[in-house]
Amino acid sequence: MEMNYIIDTFFAIFSMTLIILMVPGFAMLEAGLVRTKNVSAVLTVNVMIYAVASMAFLLIGYTYAFGSWDHQDGISKYAFFMFQMAFVGKTVNIMSGGVSERSRILPLGVFTVAIGAFIYPTVVNITWGANFLEGTMLDISAMYDLAGSTVIHSTGGWALLAAILIMGARRGRYKNGRIRVIPASNIPLVTLGALLLWIGWFGFNGGSVGAISSKENADAVALTIMNTNTAGLAGAIVAWGFMYIRYKKFDITMILNGALGGLVAVTAGPDLYNIYTPILIGAIGGTLVVFAVPIFDKLHLDDPVGALSVHLVNGIWGTLAVGIFSDHSLMAQIKGIIVVGLFVFPVSYATIYIINKLIQLRADDEEQLEGLDAVECGMEAYPEFTRTI
Amino acid sequence: MEMNYIIDTFFAIFSMTLIILMVPGFAMLEAGLVRTKNVSAVLTVNVMIYAVASMAFLLIGYTYAFGSWDHQDGISKYAFFMFQMAFVGKTVNIMSGGVSERSRILPLGVFTVAIGAFIYPTVVNITWGANFLEGTMLDISAMYDLAGSTVIHSTGGWALLAAILIMGARRGRYKNGRIRVIPASNIPLVTLGALLLWIGWFGFNGGSVGAISSKENADAVALTIMNTNTAGLAGAIVAWGFMYIRYKKFDITMILNGALGGLVAVTAGPDLYNIYTPILIGAIGGTLVVFAVPIFDKLHLDDPVGALSVHLVNGIWGTLAVGIFSDHSLMAQIKGIIVVGLFVFPVSYATIYIINKLIQLRADDEEQLEGLDAVECGMEAYPEFTRTI
Amino acid sequence: MEMNYIIDTFFAIFSMTLIILMVPGFAMLEAGLVRTKNVSAVLTVNVMIYAVASMAFLLIGYTYAFGSWDHQDGISKYAFFMFQMAFVGKTVNIMSGGVSERSRILPLGVFTVAIGAFIYPTVVNITWGANFLEGTMLDISAMYDLAGSTVIHSTGGWALLAAILIMGARRGRYKNGRIRVIPASNIPLVTLGALLLWIGWFGFNGGSVGAISSKENADAVALTIMNTNTAGLAGAIVAWGFMYIRYKKFDITMILNGALGGLVAVTAGPDLYNIYTPILIGAIGGTLVVFAVPIFDKLHLDDPVGALSVHLVNGIWGTLAVGIFSDHSLMAQIKGIIVVGLFVFPVSYATIYIINKLIQLRADDEEQLEGLDAVECGMEAYPEFTRTI
Repeated sequence: MEMNYIIDTFFAIFSMTLIILMVPGFAMLEAGLVRTKNVSAVLTVNVMIYAVASMAFLLIGYTYAFGSWDHQDGISKYAFFMFQMAFVGKTVNIMSGGVSERSRILPLGVFTVAIGAFIYPTVVNITWGANFLEGTMLDISAMYDLAGSTVIHSTGGWALLAAILIMGARRGRYKNGRIRVIPASNIPLVTLGALLLWIGWFGFNGGSVGAISSKENADAVALTIMNTNTAGLAGAIVAWGFMYIRYKKFDITMILNGALGGLVAVTAGPDLYNIYTPILIGAIGGTLVVFAVPIFDKLHLDDPVGALSVHLVNGIWGTLAVGIFSDHSLMAQIKGIIVVGLFVFPVSYATIYIINKLIQLRADDEEQLEGLDAVECGMEAYPEFTRTI
Repeated sequence: MEMNYIIDTFFAIFSMTLIILMVPGFAMLEAGLVRTKNVSAVLTVNVMIYAVASMAFLLIGYTYAFGSWDHQDGISKYAFFMFQMAFVGKTVNIMSGGVSERSRILPLGVFTVAIGAFIYPTVVNITWGANFLEGTMLDISAMYDLAGSTVIHSTGGWALLAAILIMGARRGRYKNGRIRVIPASNIPLVTLGALLLWIGWFGFNGGSVGAISSKENADAVALTIMNTNTAGLAGAIVAWGFMYIRYKKFDITMILNGALGGLVAVTAGPDLYNIYTPILIGAIGGTLVVFAVPIFDKLHLDDPVGALSVHLVNGIWGTLAVGIFSDHSLMAQIKGIIVVGLFVFPVSYATIYIINKLIQLRADDEEQLEGLDAVECGMEAYPEFTRTI
Repeated sequence: MEMNYIIDTFFAIFSMTLIILMVPGFAMLEAGLVRTKNVSAVLTVNVMIYAVASMAFLLIGYTYAFGSWDHQDGISKYAFFMFQMAFVGKTVNIMSGGVSERSRILPLGVFTVAIGAFIYPTVVNITWGANFLEGTMLDISAMYDLAGSTVIHSTGGWALLAAILIMGARRGRYKNGRIRVIPASNIPLVTLGALLLWIGWFGFNGGSVGAISSKENADAVALTIMNTNTAGLAGAIVAWGFMYIRYKKFDITMILNGALGGLVAVTAGPDLYNIYTPILIGAIGGTLVVFAVPIFDKLHLDDPVGALSVHLVNGIWGTLAVGIFSDHSLMAQIKGIIVVGLFVFPVSYATIYIINKLIQLRADDEEQLEGLDAVECGMEAYPEFTRTI
């Protein structure tokens, strides 16, 4: 019916716009978390990712993921594309954030093409899309993943894990068996970025319901957004509590990562839960972040923004949670997690390995010491403010 | 009718999203207005407020305010909750902003629970909600307050006044009878925050019309948003003019506070006025801010962000304006202002007094000197930028 | 039909809100591009422009542009006003940004009134509005300019060119025949601002379709937003490539200006193109920015934010592109460009010339040396951060 088409198209545009707010969200979050000498480089990477991943998805990835441009008729195909396109950069953001302060931009751009044109579209193909695995043993279309705990967050997380294993830690991060704490350079930007991500999530998850033009759908969208938010609240509060109990300090970056962990965790099934379940899911999500961050550090997996903990750990947890707290099959969820991981991790590993060999993804220690802003961008982020580090 | 339900649910989600933009709005505004040594603490407080107040409202406050989850059937109950939940933190933001640079975070968290679970829900109960005062002498349901000049802004303002009276001024603010000017540390953040609040106001006031799915409602929503904006414009221009006439300087923080004052002032009845009346209401709002800020300072009511002037003074003015510029009863407006004030101020005073006695809301002078970031958060907001203050 | 009225009103409100996000967008972009000693002044100018231009448009410009308040009946007249009002400040933003670091605020306010009440409304009148030139030789209503490549961007650009010619360069910018590079002071703000502008563009262009309440319109809106975004992507990528090839560095400010150039270029006809044409239009837009910026510098047209290249050059290019890539008459497009230029440039020149004579628009060299924040605002933007320039 025409009116449904109109309203659902409008709703997709609204949702997409919120997701695009995550572009400045990620950019500000990461720019605030790194040292000032790497801020311009991080911002360049974020803008590059949006431009390159989206273009790769437009030219190649989208039709590969969904089979054609005209695979659905409920909303405008252009709005559907834009909504889907808004997702693709996120997977690279997750990966690039975690290798901040040591990655060169051009090789990262090459990997962005790989993710936007091939890796992410493959995952979409076998989950939300054309599904070339249909009927095979590897068919994971029974996995329920409304907005991408696995499809987006784990995918980005697996790619990040591969990148960290290949690239190693930042210069001087782990020396003589000790972990050197590198403080975030700009806490207001961190906060702004995380809050923009939070708001973007309403579009991410709410829009993933796919339609709002029936009473049932309107309720599902509203419940989805409410549950999404609730999980974020719970993640923040739990992280707040843990850090306070442990250190008697309020660690705003951990609180925000706790919130993001909760948001990732609820993303697989925000439409499935009653209004109280997300408190538990988000609280576990925040807890996982608080405990995973130091564990990854002990393993010398250097992740300046906590992306492994937020996106990979909670992407997995969130996908499992659907199997635990709804009547979807837990086995189907586990199978989905495994198949996606078994595809994304080795393919990303091989791709990044080759890129790093050919055009050196990792910046040299000297370049890292000087700062990527000078080396890669030829400009300081804050040229008038004296640096003390 | 189903289509109305769908469109009004969508509109509530849209409006709610704009209001949530006020979370980074308040955070950036306040982070910019305080000294760098307190920026992380202020940001932590802002995130904490959103998390804790919203959770308290979800678990306790909401059903207390409205009597039940199913008290209306025009839109999805989840969307209605989210829209209402988006408001609750604002009252605490108003209060916490005004006691910045001297309040400890944990006790503030306790007060946030009190406001989110009890104080604000009580005010909503007797104005927009279940109204347990119905039929009593104290019934103020005849007060017209579309989007909360009294319900939100005065409530936050009264709580702030109580807090300032109990906590006193920041260390060194008033010494030897002189007022020490403490400059804002980051004017771009102040500007960004105020503009995000401005945009959020479109959702705040427009959404408070409650529905858009009839021609009358669509006009009312559009008029509300237009009038809201116009009052902000007028407040800004008037503050600009007054400051320029007096000091021959353009004071951007006062201009922005003038705009916010105009926005608060129009909030009680933006749907009631013709398109020119908000110019007057907003201009008076901006004027009140310009004159109230130095008066509160003379009274040694130390309010680093001007929240008393913006929210309390203009919350009262805006509620009165409905009685002056529309055909609603001025007496009903006055009665509403008084009843809300007589409830919120003493209850807040008692609550804050007890909290301060038991777990010390006010940071010591030494802690204030060192800065709350070090004391409360264990991290600097801008560790690489040399501080000169 | 009532439902169309409702949905189109809602859509206009949504679009308008996105456009208002461009107010913080321009403010952050410009605050980041200038030196710290001029940041408060730039922010004051941005807030002033929104307040003064909007108020002038409300009181005078709007009825002049459209002939009356009730000239259309498809959406709420208040929503239509707000959508149109959201545009007016942009023309002044374009102009003010380009004369940053050397313009005094009060005279700029006077010119803002001129643009908001007369110059921009005249352009709207003869293009989208009442058209007092109808039937005359100068009638340019055959020019297709959906969202203002000419009406907004060239208009602002011509006004800027006039201002630069009258005001000259910043103190010390061109001395002894050499160009002194003045680095941007805050790259995160530049990035945030540009990305907010990008998102605002979805409302700018999408909303300019005027309605979403039929299947055709819904498709047109979605295509418009998709094409808008694609042109921005292409502009960013091309600027990225050119700068890398030339300097082996990634210049984030040029990448962002390339994106903005692509966005301006597609603005005249985003609803007319297939989904691939905007790649070409945006790529040419980005290329024009990369080459125009140094050319203007060689001509000693000092433009700290690159507004001539982004808005004037691409405003012209985008308007021509409609004549090249759609079946609209190229001649009509050229005629439109010329008539608007022949009106805006001399009128702006005369107005600015008189303002500069009477109340001195250009800040003295001493004032520029001290910085406009001290001179005009009496406050520093970052008082606690040591300045090194």
